[in-house]
Amino acid sequence: MIFARVIGTVVAAQKDENLNGKKLLLCKEVDHQGKPLSTYHVAVDAVQAGEGNMVLLSYGSSARMTDLTRNAPIDAVIMAIVDDVHVQTVKPSKKATA
Amino acid sequence: MIFARVIGTVVAAQKDENLNGKKLLLCKEVDHQGKPLSTYHVAVDAVQAGEGNMVLLSYGSSARMTDLTRNAPIDAVIMAIVDDVHVQTVKPSKKATA
Amino acid sequence: MIFARVIGTVVAAQKDENLNGKKLLLCKEVDHQGKPLSTYHVAVDAVQAGEGNMVLLSYGSSARMTDLTRNAPIDAVIMAIVDDVHVQTVKPSKKATA
Amino acid sequence: MIFARVIGTVVAAQKDENLNGKKLLLCKEVDHQGKPLSTYHVAVDAVQAGEGNMVLLSYGSSARMTDLTRNAPIDAVIMAIVDDVHVQTVKPSKKATA
Amino acid sequence: MIFARVIGTVVAAQKDENLNGKKLLLCKEVDHQGKPLSTYHVAVDAVQAGEGNMVLLSYGSSARMTDLTRNAPIDAVIMAIVDDVHVQTVKPSKKATA
Repeated sequence: MIFARVIGTVVAAQKDENLNGKKLLLCKEVDHQGKPLSTYHVAVDAVQAGEGNMVLLSYGSSARMTDLTRNAPIDAVIMAIVDDVHVQTVKPSKKATA
Repeated sequence: MIFARVIGTVVAAQKDENLNGKKLLLCKEVDHQGKPLSTYHVAVDAVQAGEGNMVLLSYGSSARMTDLTRNAPIDAVIMAIVDDVHVQTVKPSKKATA
Repeated sequence: MIFARVIGTVVAAQKDENLNGKKLLLCKEVDHQGKPLSTYHVAVDAVQAGEGNMVLLSYGSSARMTDLTRNAPIDAVIMAIVDDVHVQTVKPSKKATA
Repeated sequence: MIFARVIGTVVAAQKDENLNGKKLLLCKEVDHQGKPLSTYHVAVDAVQAGEGNMVLLSYGSSARMTDLTRNAPIDAVIMAIVDDVHVQTVKPSKKATA
Repeated sequence: MIFARVIGTVVAAQKDENLNGKKLLLCKEVDHQGKPLSTYHVAVDAVQAGEGNMVLLSYGSSARMTDLTRNAPIDAVIMAIVDDVHVQTVKPSKKATA
């Protein structure tokens, strides 16, 4: 999954019928600290995310694994709203020699 | 999903039989403001999109989730015509500390 | 789908049994005008494409949606031979304001 | 699969119900020698990985092929903890002429 | 599919049970002439590939389409050992006008 921030909405009247009743949100990819990256994504909202929220996006067939999105022709879903990201000071364990 | 603009058509006589009767459209990726990016995509049209339309493309197995495209060997579908994209001034909510 | 040109063949004696009888073609990605790009792809031929042909490649699970490729461990298929690509002068319709 | 190192955790209260009880770990991609690359990934932990562990990430529908993740809207899973990577001096066998 | 060369092995004791008995090989991507590129991949070996072999990798759900890998949480498989790659002098056929 990747981090993104909800920054807008997409309006589309003419669309596949399986998209009816689904909110299409414009998301800007961010890093784990919430800093904006350059990529934009359009995703269906499955967790009632609001604008400004930092969220997690799931891509591909996994995007259809929510009650809302099953069988819809969509390839990206917002499946969690991020509250906090805890980063530890990295001290590698388990060796990986080469 | 990504934004694209329909800019042409692809003609192919010799093709998998599951492609019969499906329109293959040439699309140029655009950003959320409609500005052209460098990437081109060929997608099956499931919403009667016309040339010049700004559309949404869905990729992967999701491209087969329309009545038109079920079981076809295609990996990209136009599943919505974009009318408007509303962008809010971003005011991040929900903290994401690191 | 992406455009590519068939430029060669791949010979592999030791392979998964589901690949028997399938032609593995070396393809060089091209743009919509047929100009070569830098990426190479190996794809199974489902439409009797020949060397020099400009073709369409479908990736992922969609590559298994032809009679020839069903259940094979392959992630790319040639599913159409391109005859022509018609590009219109782009005159954007449907606004997408931001 | 790609190599990554577990460097933190993601907290999300509001999420798809299929995510309940699953640990979302923040991973930084590394090369085969454990050297950090620039990309971050959020993955569900299926093997009780701990922070600092070098792990393998599997993406896409394959991420749902563990007992823990079946049917969940997630596209990345940690499915192995890396103990060692043995690299041989490469001496190409089987010719590939062009 | 992409070309790669087998250059090592990955040892992982703690892993999803569906990985038991499967060999995880470290592969370095190569071009069609066998020249090394910069990307590394970890793939399950389904064709008894050895170190130094030039192989084909299949990604995504297709990686689970071998007897060995069915239902395993893996997204890359070695499904063929490359013996030869024949490249023709490219003489484009079938026009693609724009």
